[in-house]
Amino acid sequence: MFFLFISNSDIARVPGLSAAGANVDVLPFTSPADADVIRFGRPLSIDCFPMDPDGHPTPAIITRAAVTAADIPICVVRAGSIMPPSPPYVELCGAPGGDPRIAVSVCEVKKIFDSAASLSGNFTKDEDRVMLAESIPGGTTTALLVLRALGYDCMVSSASSQNPIALKENIWRDASARLGIEKGGFKNDPLSAISELGDPMQAAVLGFIVGSKKRTEIVLAGGTQMLAVAACLRAMGCEREIAVATTNYVVSDSTASFSELARLLDVKTYSAPLDFSQSPYKGLRDYEEGFVKEGVGAGGAVLYASWQGVKADEVVVHTNELYREIAESYPPK
Amino acid sequence: MFFLFISNSDIARVPGLSAAGANVDVLPFTSPADADVIRFGRPLSIDCFPMDPDGHPTPAIITRAAVTAADIPICVVRAGSIMPPSPPYVELCGAPGGDPRIAVSVCEVKKIFDSAASLSGNFTKDEDRVMLAESIPGGTTTALLVLRALGYDCMVSSASSQNPIALKENIWRDASARLGIEKGGFKNDPLSAISELGDPMQAAVLGFIVGSKKRTEIVLAGGTQMLAVAACLRAMGCEREIAVATTNYVVSDSTASFSELARLLDVKTYSAPLDFSQSPYKGLRDYEEGFVKEGVGAGGAVLYASWQGVKADEVVVHTNELYREIAESYPPK
Repeated sequence: MFFLFISNSDIARVPGLSAAGANVDVLPFTSPADADVIRFGRPLSIDCFPMDPDGHPTPAIITRAAVTAADIPICVVRAGSIMPPSPPYVELCGAPGGDPRIAVSVCEVKKIFDSAASLSGNFTKDEDRVMLAESIPGGTTTALLVLRALGYDCMVSSASSQNPIALKENIWRDASARLGIEKGGFKNDPLSAISELGDPMQAAVLGFIVGSKKRTEIVLAGGTQMLAVAACLRAMGCEREIAVATTNYVVSDSTASFSELARLLDVKTYSAPLDFSQSPYKGLRDYEEGFVKEGVGAGGAVLYASWQGVKADEVVVHTNELYREIAESYPPK
Repeated sequence: MFFLFISNSDIARVPGLSAAGANVDVLPFTSPADADVIRFGRPLSIDCFPMDPDGHPTPAIITRAAVTAADIPICVVRAGSIMPPSPPYVELCGAPGGDPRIAVSVCEVKKIFDSAASLSGNFTKDEDRVMLAESIPGGTTTALLVLRALGYDCMVSSASSQNPIALKENIWRDASARLGIEKGGFKNDPLSAISELGDPMQAAVLGFIVGSKKRTEIVLAGGTQMLAVAACLRAMGCEREIAVATTNYVVSDSTASFSELARLLDVKTYSAPLDFSQSPYKGLRDYEEGFVKEGVGAGGAVLYASWQGVKADEVVVHTNELYREIAESYPPK
């Protein structure tokens, strides 16, 4: 089963930080729309397809292509999203995340963690392998804050072609000043790191891993955001084998430190060999220029498809077809 | 996986019809409390254990005993319950059912049906066998109405030791008069039967069956309520093999026609061989006198436990232990 966790965090409202946050009015719709895209091929609650300000489609388009080509079973989990996705979905009942420069980020961290642990305790009884993905605008920033609080001197990736590193560092400076902590200030207390600085997705995915049966193989589908969750797991003293599946775009992002961090955390990695350089569509060709990179479990979905016998280049072909259908369904206004 | 569908219907408010409806103020809490009991051993939102007016515990106590003894994986599905259960749960986003004597019962029947079909399409991809149970006060009455509308001249069971047959017949008379139909009036239109006369649980369970993979074995856990859903399936022209698992108390209920109806519908049946005659607790011994009989998938949970190697008499022993713990946790006020 491929679980998609959808959340919101107020940090995405900071201008210039998040591609989705370029228009704060659409922030509540972004992750529910992603959830709809991977299940139904298009958002059911809004009348447009999720794009960044430069016209690049959500990476959910890759996930959807993998899902349809390889018949991947999906479960959407609502972990503090402002708006609900279309039903059916699993409700964990957490509030959206706050702005950690001002106040606590995830006030219901234990409730979300326990709720997700209960979910996985039941769902992994019959499952040998599960994949956990995310959609949360601003999530790389909360990932950075949590990693810093746990003592990691690294940089996270970005959905933008220009990683706003200085802005992210400023947010760490302000948030850590509020708490009066230095790097590593929550080294042995990952739940406090998430509560003070993180986001609801992190609480949910961490809880899901901890609540799962020990024999179930867990693959986290995402980039540096999922490494932040893995860092929390290690900070809890859990040495369980864990894998993070992402895209080649994240692995080769020179502004971020995906591979180095994965080594430090003793996490297995998978890099989806995506290549949109021959796509007929500029929106997808630009993926090769560092736009979007990852999200909604795109890299992981390519790995999941390979388990079902569908190769990465077939997923690319399906993604191009899907883009064509979407462009026809949503003509320019 | 054992799926519990929880719902409400206004018909439960009719005095004398439903054990749970003896106090209409607690009706919104009944099915969420049942969902909590089978997962957490007790209700998390209310400070009492669900009992009928005569002090007989909810049959969820049997389901819980089976779940703990046999490590049964559970998923709670909210299909039009007034109150939500404790998280995590799957949200189908339907409204509670109305009173079919006055107006349409399930105005969102197609939405609930489709949502449940989407759920099962994903969940049965990896599952060879699923069990579907219910908790909805007043559910045997909506079962009767739907069965009559489909043309079946039968009587449903009751959680009371005195089946209020005359009252149920009066409700059929009033509801069919509103619609201007006779017995069999929706013979070829089961979704309209549910919409006009049924309840949200029926829409959800029917949708779940129709959306499931053909090779997945479906077992409905319940008595005449689940036969009403099976009747809808047959009315849709679906000849798929289906089983209904219930308790010996329902099968031997001489006021109802479980076995005869199951034969008419070509449905396999299982009867859980429960025996509480030696229980130290009157609340459970009275199960032998026709109180409660079934519900919250009690009979099916005994079957599920047997799949895992746990026998019915072990479930009975665990139920007695659970009753003792509950009596100690909730002392008389």
